[in-house]
Amino acid sequence: MPAPIVLLTDFGESDPFVGIMKGVILSRFSGVRIVDLTHQIPPQDVRIAGFYLMASVSYFPEGSVFVCVVDPGVGTERHVLWARTQYHQFLAPDNGLLSWVDRRASFKEIRRVTNRRLFLDKVSTTFHGRDIFAPVAAELARGGAPASLGPRVSSLKRIAFPEPRRHPRKILGSVLAVDRFGNAITNMMARDVPAKAQFWFRDKNLGRMRTHFAEVSPGRPVVVSGSLGFVELSVRNGSFASAYGAALGDPLEAKFG
Amino acid sequence: MPAPIVLLTDFGESDPFVGIMKGVILSRFSGVRIVDLTHQIPPQDVRIAGFYLMASVSYFPEGSVFVCVVDPGVGTERHVLWARTQYHQFLAPDNGLLSWVDRRASFKEIRRVTNRRLFLDKVSTTFHGRDIFAPVAAELARGGAPASLGPRVSSLKRIAFPEPRRHPRKILGSVLAVDRFGNAITNMMARDVPAKAQFWFRDKNLGRMRTHFAEVSPGRPVVVSGSLGFVELSVRNGSFASAYGAALGDPLEAKFG
Amino acid sequence: MPAPIVLLTDFGESDPFVGIMKGVILSRFSGVRIVDLTHQIPPQDVRIAGFYLMASVSYFPEGSVFVCVVDPGVGTERHVLWARTQYHQFLAPDNGLLSWVDRRASFKEIRRVTNRRLFLDKVSTTFHGRDIFAPVAAELARGGAPASLGPRVSSLKRIAFPEPRRHPRKILGSVLAVDRFGNAITNMMARDVPAKAQFWFRDKNLGRMRTHFAEVSPGRPVVVSGSLGFVELSVRNGSFASAYGAALGDPLEAKFG
Repeated sequence: MPAPIVLLTDFGESDPFVGIMKGVILSRFSGVRIVDLTHQIPPQDVRIAGFYLMASVSYFPEGSVFVCVVDPGVGTERHVLWARTQYHQFLAPDNGLLSWVDRRASFKEIRRVTNRRLFLDKVSTTFHGRDIFAPVAAELARGGAPASLGPRVSSLKRIAFPEPRRHPRKILGSVLAVDRFGNAITNMMARDVPAKAQFWFRDKNLGRMRTHFAEVSPGRPVVVSGSLGFVELSVRNGSFASAYGAALGDPLEAKFG
Repeated sequence: MPAPIVLLTDFGESDPFVGIMKGVILSRFSGVRIVDLTHQIPPQDVRIAGFYLMASVSYFPEGSVFVCVVDPGVGTERHVLWARTQYHQFLAPDNGLLSWVDRRASFKEIRRVTNRRLFLDKVSTTFHGRDIFAPVAAELARGGAPASLGPRVSSLKRIAFPEPRRHPRKILGSVLAVDRFGNAITNMMARDVPAKAQFWFRDKNLGRMRTHFAEVSPGRPVVVSGSLGFVELSVRNGSFASAYGAALGDPLEAKFG
Repeated sequence: MPAPIVLLTDFGESDPFVGIMKGVILSRFSGVRIVDLTHQIPPQDVRIAGFYLMASVSYFPEGSVFVCVVDPGVGTERHVLWARTQYHQFLAPDNGLLSWVDRRASFKEIRRVTNRRLFLDKVSTTFHGRDIFAPVAAELARGGAPASLGPRVSSLKRIAFPEPRRHPRKILGSVLAVDRFGNAITNMMARDVPAKAQFWFRDKNLGRMRTHFAEVSPGRPVVVSGSLGFVELSVRNGSFASAYGAALGDPLEAKFG
């Protein structure tokens, strides 16, 4: 079975846009498998898309083609990029979405996607997911040569990762994402925080990092090393976001010594 | 790979109904691919389903079987129809859902689906998606002969397309759909509107039709030829629906000369 | 084509969690098909998950592997179970989720899933869907021997089904689930209710059970034998839940004689 095409967009699932992309892909390569990473990225939120992509890539098969369409610049002069790491390849607008993928595995090759013969005959100015990304992804999944996409380039647009600020006796971080359960995923890598650190969210002491939710009683807040490698703020069998009104960008402190 | 079965319903994704339909299909034809067009059609809204179907069909592979279950008449005497155009085939209740597909490609053959031997053994009165549409779709995808479905008929129920009204110096249109980004998709085909026309939404002049969002500043309204071929009202990097309170059925004027 | 893996979770579709599970499955067994039953189970609601699973299983192909991850006890000492009936197999936490599947087909074998060699190398304390369920499901779908999973056990945790209470002249039931259309699915099996019974929701007489929605006028309430075998309370072309404020757990009476 060839490696899958993995879709990551902000198109939602109410409109037919994702389905249409799949129709185009299957029209070009009927044998490919298509996996939805998520289509619920907040509209035009390149940062969340980049974060979820970074956190997900390593779990997918070698050769997977990630097609990332969160594209506030559609219809402007922004470029479409193809890039590959050792094991995976990516299509995305050159808007920073791919900024953080190579924190985990460096890019081996980056190209601008300019070969219009690979696109749909008629390219709209508003739906490049259908007209450019889908047919090019099908071509790549079929084993098409990357060199046919367009010229090699040496860099891509970067968004700085929102690094936590390290001080001698504390780390100041922030909330990067809130998941469906109300867990607040922060920008602190769990492995970078001293075991003895006490976490504070506003003026609430959340204690030290635990290894299991079950170390606190149901309904109590708990700091854990989350499944994506980052510090997460949770409530056991509840929602941290609801209980403490946590939202994207909210600050967090880890204090030690 | 055989052509896919494409599902379009108002079942949503919270309940197990779509999954159950897929189970039935795979029980009958384990090798078929199933694509979701969307399951978020507003409950029983045959018009939106018909519009999204019309806009999507041409992007799918030849032979695709579209299974459309938006069915306010389930459990009444309404018929189930099968129809085919040159490249695609369709299953739907005879309730107008297929009214507009053949604006782009005419029907070559229409049949009533009456052969109960193709259905599940027990047919409920409330879930024909599972009991009739799913097993019949599997049969068609396997290459079953359409003649086995039931008798040929010469017509189907039609809903009039909400055509814009043309006047000597203006066209009066309306909003057909609002997408996830807050773009208002109207019933005016972009190619039918003179290039010099000025668009008005209520008492707001939106200017003339542009080819790119980027011709206006972020946050400003813009009229574009949308990806489905219709005039769309947008806000660059924003939501027209939120900014201007646009909703289904709202009127729009294109004035010229 | 091998039998599918069927996913049932409370992960929602906004976050990348379901996509990551699929990445892990395909990394282990690229040829398997994956079907979503639903991912919109209310967070940690084991009962709704168990009810939807019970209602869905019989429609899936023989050999299907149901992977059920609604897991409020993740990171505690709860076990992961594998079980099989004559035609299907299941992976789930031992938290009652599998309580009602065997009302329709008894379990032939139950095992604790303890063989860490089948898991991802690093098992988190918060995302066993990715680290345990996904790779074990891939192993089972490939035809891996159940005996390799872990020791056989004789029982699993049970949640009592919320049986209706039978009296000489009435049955007292309750609402088990509300679907997207606002239909209230109750705990009364339609076949267990006498044909002459009159249904009451609070002080509203809903009449007797009908076979078709169309036996009442649009907008009127109607009691039907629903597609899952249970008594359902509906409004023809409307929402019972909205019209009568029905919610989970609300009582219902069927009176006869």
